[in-house]
Amino acid sequence: MNKERFIVIGGVAAGMSAASRAKRNRPDTQVVVLEKGSFVSYGSCGLPYFISGLVKDIHGLVVHDVAFFKQKRGIDVLTRHEVTKIDSQAKVVFARNLQQDEEIELSYDKLAICTGASPSYPNLPGVDLKNVFVIRTAEDGSVLKDFLKQAVPKRAAIIGAGFIGLEMAEAFTARGLDVTVIKRSGSILKMFDDDMVKLVEDELETKGVELIKDAIIQGFEGDREGKVRAVVLAQGTRQADLVLLATGSKPNSDLARQAGLEIAPNGTIVVDDRMQTSNPDIFAAGDCVGQKHIITGKDVYIPRGTTANKQGRIAGENASGGNEVFEGIVGTAVSKIFDLTVARTGLTFAEASAEGYDFVSSTVAHPSHAHTYPNPEPKDITIKLIGERATGTLLGAQMIGVIGVAKRIDVLAIAVSQGMTVGEISSLDLSYSPPFAPVWDPILVAANVALRKLEG
Amino acid sequence: MNKERFIVIGGVAAGMSAASRAKRNRPDTQVVVLEKGSFVSYGSCGLPYFISGLVKDIHGLVVHDVAFFKQKRGIDVLTRHEVTKIDSQAKVVFARNLQQDEEIELSYDKLAICTGASPSYPNLPGVDLKNVFVIRTAEDGSVLKDFLKQAVPKRAAIIGAGFIGLEMAEAFTARGLDVTVIKRSGSILKMFDDDMVKLVEDELETKGVELIKDAIIQGFEGDREGKVRAVVLAQGTRQADLVLLATGSKPNSDLARQAGLEIAPNGTIVVDDRMQTSNPDIFAAGDCVGQKHIITGKDVYIPRGTTANKQGRIAGENASGGNEVFEGIVGTAVSKIFDLTVARTGLTFAEASAEGYDFVSSTVAHPSHAHTYPNPEPKDITIKLIGERATGTLLGAQMIGVIGVAKRIDVLAIAVSQGMTVGEISSLDLSYSPPFAPVWDPILVAANVALRKLEG
Repeated sequence: MNKERFIVIGGVAAGMSAASRAKRNRPDTQVVVLEKGSFVSYGSCGLPYFISGLVKDIHGLVVHDVAFFKQKRGIDVLTRHEVTKIDSQAKVVFARNLQQDEEIELSYDKLAICTGASPSYPNLPGVDLKNVFVIRTAEDGSVLKDFLKQAVPKRAAIIGAGFIGLEMAEAFTARGLDVTVIKRSGSILKMFDDDMVKLVEDELETKGVELIKDAIIQGFEGDREGKVRAVVLAQGTRQADLVLLATGSKPNSDLARQAGLEIAPNGTIVVDDRMQTSNPDIFAAGDCVGQKHIITGKDVYIPRGTTANKQGRIAGENASGGNEVFEGIVGTAVSKIFDLTVARTGLTFAEASAEGYDFVSSTVAHPSHAHTYPNPEPKDITIKLIGERATGTLLGAQMIGVIGVAKRIDVLAIAVSQGMTVGEISSLDLSYSPPFAPVWDPILVAANVALRKLEG
Repeated sequence: MNKERFIVIGGVAAGMSAASRAKRNRPDTQVVVLEKGSFVSYGSCGLPYFISGLVKDIHGLVVHDVAFFKQKRGIDVLTRHEVTKIDSQAKVVFARNLQQDEEIELSYDKLAICTGASPSYPNLPGVDLKNVFVIRTAEDGSVLKDFLKQAVPKRAAIIGAGFIGLEMAEAFTARGLDVTVIKRSGSILKMFDDDMVKLVEDELETKGVELIKDAIIQGFEGDREGKVRAVVLAQGTRQADLVLLATGSKPNSDLARQAGLEIAPNGTIVVDDRMQTSNPDIFAAGDCVGQKHIITGKDVYIPRGTTANKQGRIAGENASGGNEVFEGIVGTAVSKIFDLTVARTGLTFAEASAEGYDFVSSTVAHPSHAHTYPNPEPKDITIKLIGERATGTLLGAQMIGVIGVAKRIDVLAIAVSQGMTVGEISSLDLSYSPPFAPVWDPILVAANVALRKLEG
């Protein structure tokens, strides 16, 4: 009798987690990963630091290489293999070896689709010009960095002002480029409320990044060689030697759709909380699927590397006979944008309003640590809390500062997950020592202020 | 009719919180703080940084001065006033003005005792020699720093190896002294398990601090001027130009005892969860009282500045007609010891054993952040978790590392407070971005490992 075979499509994040877990559970199963690109198991979130030069070599983004997975984990990884079709009746996957331009077909017992997402291209004239880049895969990063080294451009225009757009603004600035960030709506970082985002806008200005909001983009202008040279806006033309499109991403669900799997209206592959698709032999995980939001109970699309890995592991667990459930997310996110750390969890004011909650919001600024440890000098952390009026339950938090933000947001991420009230948060026994916190931690101060507002 | 009067004895941490809250609640009450020392509202946890030289002036430890409390908060603060007696029948406090050597008496309607704690002096020959120091108050700090500046000692011996002893070892080292830490038991940092403490011992060695454990101290040897010059140990004599006693503290409850208040066997003033003593008009808070441990439900004595402030605020609230409850502690603590951050919450292996829990413990080391952000290079965080065997409930955590420890422990502090299982922790939606965390946060990795151990 033949070995069972578990095929994983896509080997960046979720895919390798799925493969690793399944192989550990069932060492006698053959586990095969088919990855279209040249690299597997890499941190695409690290691409801005590869572009800035902090990470010298693209291999510096890779966690484990193909040889590691073969030798240490017994997993067969085929890179440069693009899956072209899934026959879910015959349980066969068709793929093209891009290196040798030949077709292969592989039968499977269980399959996991971890195809990730692709950049959304805005439908604008000139979007196909040379030197209009996206940054999603390791290959995208290599292409962009080669261009930066060889062409030594002076001016960059970034379309979009989410985390990746602003992280790339920092990376380009670090390389000495003049940077313009162009946003078609009136606010950057739409996952944050406008009052919080003001702090980030000030930081961009301080660092010399031009920000154009409410931009009406008419298209991109090219030179005779077909290279982009300007972004044409109703507000005037901005010269640019390169354009980066950072206008979001869309789930890669075409293969799943063609295989007859159920697809959600937002384009994600429908899975249950065990990461099983509408076909019981096929699982899906990562940026090609949605997530259950723990607070609202709704399905959302908030793709994150850490979520992808958790989902991938659960897909691998259940594809190999286990029974684990993905609990969902609360929308926790953090980014370093120049000197600021920008973090959030749960619902913003805007999101809580849209969901119909009756709530109060309060904002405080309090030092990161005690003034008795001036190395470095403490810096204010601004914290905005959203508390449900009737119950005092914390619905969400936003936090921006220079020091001590990143893992403080996690304290509130748990609080939100656990449905804690701001009163309960205000009495928490949090760590205190002058190098790390004031005697009243900013979180306690924020909770106390929210509590008074709820009681008042 | 006279104004109501609320007297607070002690103005370092809990006392000023009590006074401030009471005055805010009842602006028409006269609030008087009697403080034996010259300073109020200061962070005694910052004393090591004053000694090291990071904080230049003792006033740099003060949060608010006497004038601030008078002008901004309408609170009368009398420094250098030592309370000598409480007459709880007549509701009168007797105090000596140390500046002018005169006695005063003040009647009160409500009283709060926030007298803090004092160093425990070991009963050893020579303990009264000159240049044998303690460090508890701002005055202690000033005396020691003056000595360091004027006498320029070369060798320091520290008796005791808790947080304050080791923080002072760092401070003395920063000033160029040769430091010997002398511990009478076989382990330093008794709030941590021995396997974790090993990391701290290695750090002390790396930084050139001599550590003598299981020391049998026979006494201190003085010169003809009565100045200490050596610590005499069964293990041999250690020359020392100064000795610092860091052998713990004991609650200052003599006044309360003399006033007929109930005192616990461990010497703390007995209070209920409203911070009320056995006399309904008298409240107590801070290092002179104990705390309820949320996990065990037992009364413990774990004095901390942040706890003192929370308790003080609740004492002030309830003394002014409110009704708030102190929820208790979970034993969260953190300290910077040279390059290490050393943190804990809940119960250690030793504590959980002593409490009779059936549990498993697991330890992992995982990088502080992604290798794709090498500025600074990620460093391993070692995390030890204690999980109850039958339920998987997290009972405690210890965490030691160089980067990203301090506020990560707070995530586990909440988890312990909320009675979360390690399974629940492993699925938390924690923040991820390469500068701040690996895609699997060390907390998730630690929880996954603990989970496997619990299931295995």
